[in-house]
Amino acid sequence: MRELVLVGIGTGAPGHLTDDGRDALTRADVVLLPRKGSDKAALAELRVALLRSIGSSARIAPFDMPNRNEILPYEERVERWHDAIAAVWAEALRVAKPQGAVALMVWGDPGLYDSTLRIAARLDPVPRLRVIPGITALQALTAAHAIPFNSVAGSVLVTTGRRLRTEGWPANAETVAVMLDGDGAFAALPDQGLHIWWGAYLGMTEQILDAGPIAEAAPRIASARAAARLRHGWIMDTYLLRRGA
Amino acid sequence: MRELVLVGIGTGAPGHLTDDGRDALTRADVVLLPRKGSDKAALAELRVALLRSIGSSARIAPFDMPNRNEILPYEERVERWHDAIAAVWAEALRVAKPQGAVALMVWGDPGLYDSTLRIAARLDPVPRLRVIPGITALQALTAAHAIPFNSVAGSVLVTTGRRLRTEGWPANAETVAVMLDGDGAFAALPDQGLHIWWGAYLGMTEQILDAGPIAEAAPRIASARAAARLRHGWIMDTYLLRRGA
Ligand SMILES: C[S@@+](CC[C@H](N)C(=O)[O-])C[C@H]1O[C@@H](n2cnc3c(N)ncnc32)[C@H](O)[C@@H]1O
Ligand SMILES: C[S@@+](CC[C@H](N)C(=O)[O-])C[C@H]1O[C@@H](n2cnc3c(N)ncnc32)[C@H](O)[C@@H]1O
Repeated sequence: MRELVLVGIGTGAPGHLTDDGRDALTRADVVLLPRKGSDKAALAELRVALLRSIGSSARIAPFDMPNRNEILPYEERVERWHDAIAAVWAEALRVAKPQGAVALMVWGDPGLYDSTLRIAARLDPVPRLRVIPGITALQALTAAHAIPFNSVAGSVLVTTGRRLRTEGWPANAETVAVMLDGDGAFAALPDQGLHIWWGAYLGMTEQILDAGPIAEAAPRIASARAAARLRHGWIMDTYLLRRGA
Repeated sequence: MRELVLVGIGTGAPGHLTDDGRDALTRADVVLLPRKGSDKAALAELRVALLRSIGSSARIAPFDMPNRNEILPYEERVERWHDAIAAVWAEALRVAKPQGAVALMVWGDPGLYDSTLRIAARLDPVPRLRVIPGITALQALTAAHAIPFNSVAGSVLVTTGRRLRTEGWPANAETVAVMLDGDGAFAALPDQGLHIWWGAYLGMTEQILDAGPIAEAAPRIASARAAARLRHGWIMDTYLLRRGA
């Protein structure tokens, strides 16, 4: 394979695709694509629909996402899982025999809470890598609410739900942006005059938004979140918290 | 005006434009555009070239960026400057008499260290706002270096050069992403096993990259930075610092 192009495709809105992204997907000889069912089904379908809509004639090299080993300790489990994904990519590519560039469609931006770069580094030989940035869930969130990411000259801590839950509100933080929060860690925060802007399925037809002072908004969001997860069978959500907003 | 659309255009690469961005710029009746010379000239030209390249037939409402009052204290100066920009926008729109949507091309993403949202809120009446996310300088940076933004399950502090200089390396931080650093605050950091990934003119033909352990890389970057600024008359750069990378 000449090079591996990681294409950030944004978070579900076809309009998130950039010209560079379209170009890479159109020129690729092969696109590595998780099989439907191996990912959240709706998201796998979105990728195929996007590829079709731009008229790419790239050949598809499908792969099945391996299962995670649920027994190992967290870090080792992630390491072994990445090894296993690299192995199924290698096998899919061995079958596809790419004559040119291989592309991978990465949700959001390939740099933000995504393992594709780390998995690609496990390929042997390591291919030449090109990364095409894509719109992130955080950008989809701030755009949907028409709010700035940062306060004037302020800083923003980008973190995970797990960290927010275990570490609490970070000392001196003004704005905290939270991703990968399976359990609604916002609901456990002490009210310190925090304002929350929340969004689920951002960029998708299912998009839901809510915002408000955390004391009022947290219970409302928690139940909207539970209901939506039940309805769709899965949820992806993210939020921004700001002090004294 | 029916609505004001803030279109994130990315950081200088035409390929950063998203389909949503192109769509908004194509459908707009009027595009508010700073006059050449009132901005960094190269950047004003890039905006016009982008608009032309997508074949938008929107009418252009040009405006001159007001001067900043250099005497007032920082916060008041920024407030008055934003008031003044809102006033020149209002005047440009009064002349253009938009019959449909008005678009503004915002560098990078409209949410990230950008005042457009705050200026728009000063218009009277406040227009209906739509925000279209765009590729940020931080995404252009991590993509160019093919590095992840965050470490595995780690957090990232996004901050300004001014803060990094006055506050030093933030306690407990793993990754710090720095923007708006006029003076190379990285050079003043104590060596704590930090690695730096730096980029200037990201996405543009002038793009420069450098990376390495900070002790080695900082002096090299500081001189490359000074030379580039001299050569081009201006510089825009950003960097990521990671501990123990
Ligand atoms: C594995 S991370 C990938 C992030 C992605 N690379 C990006 O740039 O947005 C997945 C997390 O991103 C957030 N996320 C991704 N897509 C989202 C969407 N459409 N709406 C809301 N949150 C989303 C959620 O917090 C989710 O837990
Ligand atoms: C006023 S902020 C605007 C940021 C923009 N909204 C974004 O999303 O990237 C300007 C700062 O962004 C960074 N920046 C913007 N464009 C850049 C580029 N092409 N290369 C490097 N840094 C850039 C620099 O740190 C600069 O000081």
